[in-house]
Amino acid sequence: MDHPQRSSTLSGGVTAPSGFRAAGVSAGIKANGNLDLALIVSDTPATAAAVFTINRAQAAPVTVSREHLQQSGGAARAIIVNSGCANACTGEAGMQVARGMAAETARLVNCPVEQVLVASTGVIGVDLSLDKIRQGLPAAVSGLHASGGADAARAIMTTDPFPKEAAATITIGGKAVTIGGIAKGSGMIEPMMATMLGFVTTDAGVAPGLLTRALREAVNDSFNAITVDGECSTNDCVMLLANGASGAVVDDNSYGEFVKGLSSVCRELAMGIVRGGEGATKLVTVNVTGAASAADARICAKAIANSPLVKTAIHGGDPNWGRLIAVAGRAGVPFELNRAAVTIGSIVLFENGKPHDELAAAAADYLKGKDLTVGVHLGAGVASSTVWTCDLSAEYVRINADYRT
Amino acid sequence: MDHPQRSSTLSGGVTAPSGFRAAGVSAGIKANGNLDLALIVSDTPATAAAVFTINRAQAAPVTVSREHLQQSGGAARAIIVNSGCANACTGEAGMQVARGMAAETARLVNCPVEQVLVASTGVIGVDLSLDKIRQGLPAAVSGLHASGGADAARAIMTTDPFPKEAAATITIGGKAVTIGGIAKGSGMIEPMMATMLGFVTTDAGVAPGLLTRALREAVNDSFNAITVDGECSTNDCVMLLANGASGAVVDDNSYGEFVKGLSSVCRELAMGIVRGGEGATKLVTVNVTGAASAADARICAKAIANSPLVKTAIHGGDPNWGRLIAVAGRAGVPFELNRAAVTIGSIVLFENGKPHDELAAAAADYLKGKDLTVGVHLGAGVASSTVWTCDLSAEYVRINADYRT
Repeated sequence: MDHPQRSSTLSGGVTAPSGFRAAGVSAGIKANGNLDLALIVSDTPATAAAVFTINRAQAAPVTVSREHLQQSGGAARAIIVNSGCANACTGEAGMQVARGMAAETARLVNCPVEQVLVASTGVIGVDLSLDKIRQGLPAAVSGLHASGGADAARAIMTTDPFPKEAAATITIGGKAVTIGGIAKGSGMIEPMMATMLGFVTTDAGVAPGLLTRALREAVNDSFNAITVDGECSTNDCVMLLANGASGAVVDDNSYGEFVKGLSSVCRELAMGIVRGGEGATKLVTVNVTGAASAADARICAKAIANSPLVKTAIHGGDPNWGRLIAVAGRAGVPFELNRAAVTIGSIVLFENGKPHDELAAAAADYLKGKDLTVGVHLGAGVASSTVWTCDLSAEYVRINADYRT
Repeated sequence: MDHPQRSSTLSGGVTAPSGFRAAGVSAGIKANGNLDLALIVSDTPATAAAVFTINRAQAAPVTVSREHLQQSGGAARAIIVNSGCANACTGEAGMQVARGMAAETARLVNCPVEQVLVASTGVIGVDLSLDKIRQGLPAAVSGLHASGGADAARAIMTTDPFPKEAAATITIGGKAVTIGGIAKGSGMIEPMMATMLGFVTTDAGVAPGLLTRALREAVNDSFNAITVDGECSTNDCVMLLANGASGAVVDDNSYGEFVKGLSSVCRELAMGIVRGGEGATKLVTVNVTGAASAADARICAKAIANSPLVKTAIHGGDPNWGRLIAVAGRAGVPFELNRAAVTIGSIVLFENGKPHDELAAAAADYLKGKDLTVGVHLGAGVASSTVWTCDLSAEYVRINADYRT
């Protein structure tokens, strides 16, 4: 599949910040022998924050990680993640496996069990083998390395066509602070909290409350502003560890700067997920303007970004702007047809209640690109929102019709 | 495309009831010369009812038909419909064309203009040629025939793989009453009011208020209970004419019987739309039970029926029941994982918090069929809802990526 090109990334991902090591190994969970077990460890206890899926069918690792964050008061040493099996809808047996993963990791890393966070991704409803995790863990622990972020990024992939890593450096109180992250996700992507797995580390020191606030803020305009197929998974989470190894401490004064850096890392990871969306060939930025409220703008932008008719038209390079209007009209938010406008790139195809279909050829030419922007003005106010999505291709259908068979 | 098999239909469609004639001609709106102009005429003024799209971007013919129904007090002689161009988002010029279609029809049929209803379907945002309508209309009028329903059914098609007709006979007050209809729709199908075009006739006599009530009731569990792609169009409407030619009059006593007959015709047309959904190879009945309310059940059933992951899994014959649970969990309605259940056909794949993945092979075998049922029990109450959808195939993408090019 010819995916839209990636933006450049700083190297290092989750191990770019000081004091973090990571590893990715094969534990035999994936039948093809690919990397399927990732371990991220902070040399010292880090403050931890996380956002989890709001799906009511929550996977066992989500439940366990939530409990551990509460029990530890927002402290963590390690994150253990497997791909190839979601350990979701697996009942009490699945809970035992998730607890077992944490316990075995805690034993090998030598930390309290509540300082281990757990995540899983893959097929729902299939039992996860704790034996395989136990067999794979020693190699992961002995393989922990300050440049292991890349392996970890590979070990959390499922249908992802490429690994997603990002890192950024900012200055706080005169000290260099690094923020790094990895993420996975390709299908079942519409973050209602944070749909996919994302793991972000920083060597800044941040108090738990402030860290949670920063993560929520950063996630809102990154992971929560993307969609591939409008599907929210049972396992989604973004976890953030801050170990203070840089010597810099984030306070109310430097909070804004920290959130900016964190947001840039989260956004790059989120955009990577969309670029690598199942079957994606184009990255599409959806701008909704002229909305009565920011919430309305987001609702409409999400509706457009999830519309199969819009996504297939973009896939085919068809400037079928009427589909954009049709979605805006049914999105359930204030919309005034006579004041509305539709743009593809910078080409205005509908304005003041009238079509400019004579510009369709120019718009079709623009749609041959890989990195596209479409805009709808609702004519109902001044609020706006931006959401990122990808096109819908026949390849998406093939991937998902054959996922397990 | 190998569409799921149709159920048998009584013949005659919209001309099955007494006192109705119809025609379908080519007016040159479709470039390929296929039938594109349908005319349905009642020999005498009929009472009329209609439900329209709730899309805020309403097409000109929707606005005009709504006005005419109001002006005529719910009376109509004729319905004029073109395919190949939606006359939507076409500004004041589009309104003039819709009014012109009605005026020219009224002149040729010899009735007041407000007794003509207008509908259009096809590409949004392209100007409709009134000249072509004017040139085509005389042939439609002279071609009006008591067996013209089949031609009319063909003339309203766009991407439909086959025409949709249905008819039923019931007895009211000892008299035989016939109800007949035609419908079109294949993509951009999720009725929020009635997404697609549907035209239903009956030779029963029904007062306007009662007729509207009956139509709304019948539409709720037919056209409003189907989805192909979750898209609500700018042009959708279902129109119902009752001319009383049978001599039977529907009153409060016979209302239930009339609604039953009307519902059966509407449901057959609606199922036809799903069977002929863009790229569809399977008809899928989605049953949601155990919901806290009927509204919740409908919301969840629609979410499942619109889920690209569920629809692609069914297309591929993959009994990936975890996707059904994942959608139920994110549908925003009360859901208790430990009391929930998932069935594919009659095979229970998840119950009491535990998977029965050992039955996956049997479920995969069942999914080879063309007419499938899936069920989710939410474990939250006793309410239920049924929705019909189709699978999502690579062909859907091909059809919609290339619609205009």
